[in-house]
Amino acid sequence: MSTNRGPTDDVGRTASLPTAAVPARVALSRLAEPGNVGLHELVARLGAAAALDAVVRGGVEVKGVLAERFSLELLADDLRHGEQVGARVVTPSDPQWPAGLDDLAVPPLCLWVVGPAALEDVCARSVAIVGARSATAYGTQVAADLAAGLAGRGFAVVSGAAFGVDAAAHRGALAVDGLTIAVLAGGIDRLYPASHSALLREIGRTGAVVTEQPPGVAPIGSRFLSRNRLIAALAAGTVVVEASLRSGSLNTAGHAERIYRPIGAVPGPVTSMQSAGCHQLVRDLRAALVTDVAEVADLVGEIGTDLAPVKRGSARPSDDLDPDDRALFEALPLRGYVDLSTLARSANLPHMSVRAGLGRLLSRGAAVTDGLDGWRKAPANTPVGG
Amino acid sequence: MSTNRGPTDDVGRTASLPTAAVPARVALSRLAEPGNVGLHELVARLGAAAALDAVVRGGVEVKGVLAERFSLELLADDLRHGEQVGARVVTPSDPQWPAGLDDLAVPPLCLWVVGPAALEDVCARSVAIVGARSATAYGTQVAADLAAGLAGRGFAVVSGAAFGVDAAAHRGALAVDGLTIAVLAGGIDRLYPASHSALLREIGRTGAVVTEQPPGVAPIGSRFLSRNRLIAALAAGTVVVEASLRSGSLNTAGHAERIYRPIGAVPGPVTSMQSAGCHQLVRDLRAALVTDVAEVADLVGEIGTDLAPVKRGSARPSDDLDPDDRALFEALPLRGYVDLSTLARSANLPHMSVRAGLGRLLSRGAAVTDGLDGWRKAPANTPVGG
Repeated sequence: MSTNRGPTDDVGRTASLPTAAVPARVALSRLAEPGNVGLHELVARLGAAAALDAVVRGGVEVKGVLAERFSLELLADDLRHGEQVGARVVTPSDPQWPAGLDDLAVPPLCLWVVGPAALEDVCARSVAIVGARSATAYGTQVAADLAAGLAGRGFAVVSGAAFGVDAAAHRGALAVDGLTIAVLAGGIDRLYPASHSALLREIGRTGAVVTEQPPGVAPIGSRFLSRNRLIAALAAGTVVVEASLRSGSLNTAGHAERIYRPIGAVPGPVTSMQSAGCHQLVRDLRAALVTDVAEVADLVGEIGTDLAPVKRGSARPSDDLDPDDRALFEALPLRGYVDLSTLARSANLPHMSVRAGLGRLLSRGAAVTDGLDGWRKAPANTPVGG
Repeated sequence: MSTNRGPTDDVGRTASLPTAAVPARVALSRLAEPGNVGLHELVARLGAAAALDAVVRGGVEVKGVLAERFSLELLADDLRHGEQVGARVVTPSDPQWPAGLDDLAVPPLCLWVVGPAALEDVCARSVAIVGARSATAYGTQVAADLAAGLAGRGFAVVSGAAFGVDAAAHRGALAVDGLTIAVLAGGIDRLYPASHSALLREIGRTGAVVTEQPPGVAPIGSRFLSRNRLIAALAAGTVVVEASLRSGSLNTAGHAERIYRPIGAVPGPVTSMQSAGCHQLVRDLRAALVTDVAEVADLVGEIGTDLAPVKRGSARPSDDLDPDDRALFEALPLRGYVDLSTLARSANLPHMSVRAGLGRLLSRGAAVTDGLDGWRKAPANTPVGG
């Protein structure tokens, strides 16, 4: 065992390295930021243990990989810190590994996971609901409603635990005892933002909190961007609820698009800057405009089982009238009765047509008569007749 | 000259019929509701005067054409009533005839027009702005803003003079001394709704009030539907601002689609039933989602001259940083200064990378230094540097 402490010390290079994939992947994830293409290719070629050996002892240089950062102590610390918060490490050989992650150009080396959710099963029927931190009341309401409705239909709700839309989505799912997954930009022991630590603990107790970052890593800038690709890849589709033109959730939508996952955007007032990003997604990225649970389920769910019903106004007895009968129907008063001659004048139709038309309107429940020569529209909501 | 008064009297059939196209078309438009296919085909085949003769005297029966309604007196009355309100009759042989009308399956037989606008020229650069009568404050505000902005860019604003969105659109155009065209569902002497008669007179004084219905005809039910096809055909494109799922403006959009005119829909809150029709247009009819004047101009204007700029958040010095520099930038405090070692820890980067990265951030104006070993983010809105 090495006793050195600093990442620049070279003793680690002579100590024995982990030979199993899991600790090797954990160790490698310390040496580069997420999304390192060279490291991904090296691991794909050699396997994780041999890749670690190559960069730490073999002198193989990979852009962005800081081999000198490796130490067995750091690895042991990371594993211990993970254990302390009840996290398990999930790697691609694990049956829990979400297959969707492999659609990414550079999948994570491993996931740190806290929570009972069976990740692979859960992600197969899931939807990411993301959006602005500075959401409006409208945005958080819609996010919570969509999340609750989708969780109620058995979708897991994936999001980033941020203020605003993210938190509202998690909370909406929790409110109906649904499954929700929070993906962090920092270490599994860094519950961020701090004021959401209770929320994150609840998610970890019932669903899953997930990150690809080693324990202790601070959730800062670029890590939110790489985290966003995990949100996009873990979920079957991504819905953006509110987003300004610079929102990070547009980045999540972009990741979803690159891996051919469906994207939805919730519209809002054109006067709200917090909806401008959503509108841009519909215009420029051809995101589906989604307005309710059924439309989101239709977008991300399995074809056939989750088809959104076509929206229609409710049927009226006056629907589908031919032009003359419609003119006649419109000439009928709502209150009081008028006679046939009056109708003929106001509808500009001959008496005979009016007589025949009134018969048709009567038979389909669109008109009523006083039994003499008085006619009016049927009261609203009369069932559709003949 | 005939002296009979009733449409069922047969003296008119032996009197001399108009031989000129204009009066013949005016007379024919009394005999059937707009959109009569058989009459359209007969006029296309024989010409208007011969078609009138055929149905009035020749015994040619056309479905929906009530030949017995013809009388020379009624024709004279119609022409006189039109004249009384300053209307002119425009027919297809008139240079003012809007060519766009001929895209309709059944164009109007003639138009009654009040107002100085040169219809054909005006319609070539025009946009229909239509929507719910029961518009919300949001809807009328957006309609007025769009109309004013488009009128300011030289577009004529076409609408239906109804309450809500229509009136707001007309008023928005008038507010910037722009051209606006109101298309009526009834006769040119029936300013409807009555409470908009001052608005309609103002439109007639500066732009144009238009209808295909003979004078005196009441604006009722089915006539709004046939009127809607004129709105769609007179304008180069149609934008729906607010519409419930049963709104007549969806009918206008449907007409626009059938004649291959671009359709735009303004989004709104998904919680507003008055926006549900707009959202449905985007989802089902693939209407373009439009949020401002530039996007509408882009949709309906001439390619090249009216292209909407791509919306972006304003540029920041921290845009387009590579991942390490972004991590470093994010680790910099907004207030107070931190030293290089602190940055290396919080960004999880080696000292050398931090030193090089700070140099790059400094040169592009994203970071500032106290000149010693203190570093922080540059104040917001610093111009983008090298």
